[in-house]
Amino acid sequence: MNITGDTSEASVFSKGCPSRRVLLDVTGRWGILVLAALHQGESRFGVLRRHIEGISEKMLSHTLQLLRRDGLVLRHVDDSTPPRVTYALTALGRTVAVPAVELVTLLEGRVEQFERARDAYEECTPCADAHLGSVGRPA
Amino acid sequence: MNITGDTSEASVFSKGCPSRRVLLDVTGRWGILVLAALHQGESRFGVLRRHIEGISEKMLSHTLQLLRRDGLVLRHVDDSTPPRVTYALTALGRTVAVPAVELVTLLEGRVEQFERARDAYEECTPCADAHLGSVGRPA
Repeated sequence: MNITGDTSEASVFSKGCPSRRVLLDVTGRWGILVLAALHQGESRFGVLRRHIEGISEKMLSHTLQLLRRDGLVLRHVDDSTPPRVTYALTALGRTVAVPAVELVTLLEGRVEQFERARDAYEECTPCADAHLGSVGRPA
Repeated sequence: MNITGDTSEASVFSKGCPSRRVLLDVTGRWGILVLAALHQGESRFGVLRRHIEGISEKMLSHTLQLLRRDGLVLRHVDDSTPPRVTYALTALGRTVAVPAVELVTLLEGRVEQFERARDAYEECTPCADAHLGSVGRPA
């Protein structure tokens, strides 16, 4: 993934590389939150949905399908009536979840810095951004 | 970020928490790729655009603005004519980029496992997914 141009190996910067697809699945709007939630232990659909505020049933279902397809999440159905369905990380999913959870934990710990940065940005950069908007391309 | 319900602290699982907003900025379709690219060193807009295959000028410009607002990226304009504009990570951006780059590197190293998982999923789970689709909610 060298910015100087070596594309002979797997690279998320290459459109066609499978690692790019999985990166989009993992980090797409909800993927990383589902991974981080399942990193805390297996879970039922409804529990996940309540835990991840704002996710719709449709998007949770879709995200779980993407993560199952990538081999990161397992869906387990037991023999009870009605069948009890749970979701859990695979071994590969647990591996991928480690840096994902590190990222999440780091962001949670830096909330005040983000808030200060946002205030400063909104106070100081309207001119720069208006210029950027009018040019359409900043460099 | 406890799945059992403690929401007294910053939590990406809470809709209104600033850490959720930054998580979406960082992991949204392009954020993590821009962070990972800038982790390799400061860069001009055009170099970033060529390096991150598939990103449009508009999306790169938008993503850089989000990351600047969050205090992760700095835009530097020098005195030359025409002015030379470069983008670089801030100290906070370098901190956030560490787990982001770990995630990217891990995914690049697991490409074969993802491909095998995808083949297995597409061979074995059409029935399960048809069922999932008809029920509309898997648990």
